[in-house]
Amino acid sequence: MVYIAVLGHGVVGSGVLEVFYKNNKSILSKAGIDMDIKYILDLRDFPELPYAEKFVKSFDPIINDPEVKIVVEVMGGLDPSYDYVKRCLLSGKSVVTSNKALVAAYGAELLEIAKNNNANFLFEASVGGGIPILRPISQCLAANEIREISGILNGTTNFILTKMISEGMAFDEALALAQKLGYAERNPAADVEGMDACRKICILASLAFGRHVYPEDVHTEGITSLTLQDVKYASAWGGVIKLIGRVRKLDDGHIAAIVCPAFIEKSSQLAGIDDVFNGIMVRGDAIGDVVFYGRGAGKLPTASAVVADIIDEAKHLGARKYVYWLPAEDGYVCDYLKASSVFFVRVGTQDKAAALKSADSLFGKVTEVVCPDMPKNEAAFITPELPEGELERALASLSSLDFSIISKIRVLSDL
Amino acid sequence: MVYIAVLGHGVVGSGVLEVFYKNNKSILSKAGIDMDIKYILDLRDFPELPYAEKFVKSFDPIINDPEVKIVVEVMGGLDPSYDYVKRCLLSGKSVVTSNKALVAAYGAELLEIAKNNNANFLFEASVGGGIPILRPISQCLAANEIREISGILNGTTNFILTKMISEGMAFDEALALAQKLGYAERNPAADVEGMDACRKICILASLAFGRHVYPEDVHTEGITSLTLQDVKYASAWGGVIKLIGRVRKLDDGHIAAIVCPAFIEKSSQLAGIDDVFNGIMVRGDAIGDVVFYGRGAGKLPTASAVVADIIDEAKHLGARKYVYWLPAEDGYVCDYLKASSVFFVRVGTQDKAAALKSADSLFGKVTEVVCPDMPKNEAAFITPELPEGELERALASLSSLDFSIISKIRVLSDL
Repeated sequence: MVYIAVLGHGVVGSGVLEVFYKNNKSILSKAGIDMDIKYILDLRDFPELPYAEKFVKSFDPIINDPEVKIVVEVMGGLDPSYDYVKRCLLSGKSVVTSNKALVAAYGAELLEIAKNNNANFLFEASVGGGIPILRPISQCLAANEIREISGILNGTTNFILTKMISEGMAFDEALALAQKLGYAERNPAADVEGMDACRKICILASLAFGRHVYPEDVHTEGITSLTLQDVKYASAWGGVIKLIGRVRKLDDGHIAAIVCPAFIEKSSQLAGIDDVFNGIMVRGDAIGDVVFYGRGAGKLPTASAVVADIIDEAKHLGARKYVYWLPAEDGYVCDYLKASSVFFVRVGTQDKAAALKSADSLFGKVTEVVCPDMPKNEAAFITPELPEGELERALASLSSLDFSIISKIRVLSDL
Repeated sequence: MVYIAVLGHGVVGSGVLEVFYKNNKSILSKAGIDMDIKYILDLRDFPELPYAEKFVKSFDPIINDPEVKIVVEVMGGLDPSYDYVKRCLLSGKSVVTSNKALVAAYGAELLEIAKNNNANFLFEASVGGGIPILRPISQCLAANEIREISGILNGTTNFILTKMISEGMAFDEALALAQKLGYAERNPAADVEGMDACRKICILASLAFGRHVYPEDVHTEGITSLTLQDVKYASAWGGVIKLIGRVRKLDDGHIAAIVCPAFIEKSSQLAGIDDVFNGIMVRGDAIGDVVFYGRGAGKLPTASAVVADIIDEAKHLGARKYVYWLPAEDGYVCDYLKASSVFFVRVGTQDKAAALKSADSLFGKVTEVVCPDMPKNEAAFITPELPEGELERALASLSSLDFSIISKIRVLSDL
């Protein structure tokens, strides 16, 4: 008998209990071993639940019970999650988590501890909710040299952008609707400012390229400054704006990583991923492009990924070899100002022709973008591909010529 | 040291060698064990290849060499593949294959032999080429009760349909182009008549629902009788025609399975999967819908999946627990005439109003479909949902009223 403890009975935790008991027969049959949940750690009482007697208010009985082989951490945040998870792994208990903040901040350390204590640290649910992505990358695509991972990694912002694109809703209005529908938190900063997507691209980058990447090393821009006008320009250009998390392996062994709103072409497999859905594209040298699509969040999808990790761990208890990556290294993530991209730029000007002429001379040659209902005193164009640092210098020159920079959005036409 | 033998040096076999040696360092590091290819079985000589000395013309040295732990079967067909694979498994050698005909015909038996001999029988490459799909279903979605799997499973037919839809190319012309580009065989029957997709949906059904499904038990229609007019009707209806393989779990424990061209809505995640790409949608009770997309065939994508299986097997030699399903059972796959669907029907008639009126009275109420350049003496409509047997009886009644049935295409609006 394998005993499990669940830390936290919030949205994901209660979903784990629901899925585990609802599909119990087939879950046990797939695990090939008898298992049950012995403890649920939560400070609140849930006397009405059929498993009410499993609740405990302290971590002590869990860490001190040698029968508990698998601990599920679904509390979120770093405190006390980090401490609890570390102590579990140190005592040889395997840990399954959906906590992306924890993995992005301490993944390398926790994987090392797990390895040294013949335990596993599993976190499929931390990226893409229920979409299978980490295991496919580490197992199914193992024969590939992965070149790039790009994706729509945050459902809240994708919902907001979809409303802006398809219904012409303004950002504030779309955010309010997302909050009303339960897709966005009261404090939506982590989603709309890109931090959530950043943690996920860090986990994907760490796994795919074998070295830990910290969120603070990845240049991150959210969608708060996007306007309906930007959305219209994207459409006129032939695409849509999506919040993209992207990491690429460079020829020199370093990686380029970024989270930002970007123009992508309508024909891209990521362009049709709407509402709260997530889509992740993995580009390998043998496989080409593969895309994984589904619900990136939500109680049951996320719980589904957590329980799959539980099954996998129970099935291979003490025998499973999984995932490992090296600690972070200074300079491994290249400065985003050195990475090249194509850019869409809007400048305010009384003299459109002069603005485009100046842009032409600064960038070599730009391509004007015109859209219906275009503001009068404005020029918009697409630059050639150039390092972002050079773009910034050119934009400064434009500013000094009295053309105000209204917005700058990356164009990722190879997705 | 783990030694591997590769049976067959055709397209996939040579791809396996290419990927294995090109990415050798990272492959060995991921496997965590030293391994190499010791034999390549092929009747032809390849003296120019760097690994020319590994070629053998007989299976005997391979089956008799106890150092060979993993055998890769990439010959295709059933004879001698079935005999060789069976003998390997009986002698405790694990087998990795890309051979969908073999798995669809003998999967349950070979899995049973593998289990009894502490070996593994792995076949990720048999469905979806390099797209990770079997391992995600059996591992990542293990917490789900899977309800349905539907997909575009054949790249050749998807290429042909894409050309018909987007360029108005006739079927014969599109097929000729596919042959010219190497996407279709000289004898394209297995692709265009749906047999290839049928084998794949059988493997998916067997894996997802735990019981073997034979291709001969799945009603299969190809795309050879589709015309550009059908494509235009689909567009007028608001969708596209795709060749869909589909299996659903029924409430009574049986399954419904079919391969057929179908109308799907433009908003479906499968509608945008074009050219030679494959896309597979898995619907689970916890996860909702997830879609896997990528190149469903080709030398390197398929080889990528084969080598991933090799890595997984080498990593867990003798310790890995994987996949198993029960033997087939009479009556498990329900008669397709009992399964319900919505249908698109075209009838030839001099009197359109009379045809629609008769259809209305036979089906309850039908919805007329009108498209530009519609043939003059023709009516087209969408039926309500009804069992296919009832549809056939109603169509026979229409025929007896002198309305000729031109075509009947299933409408899958819930994909």
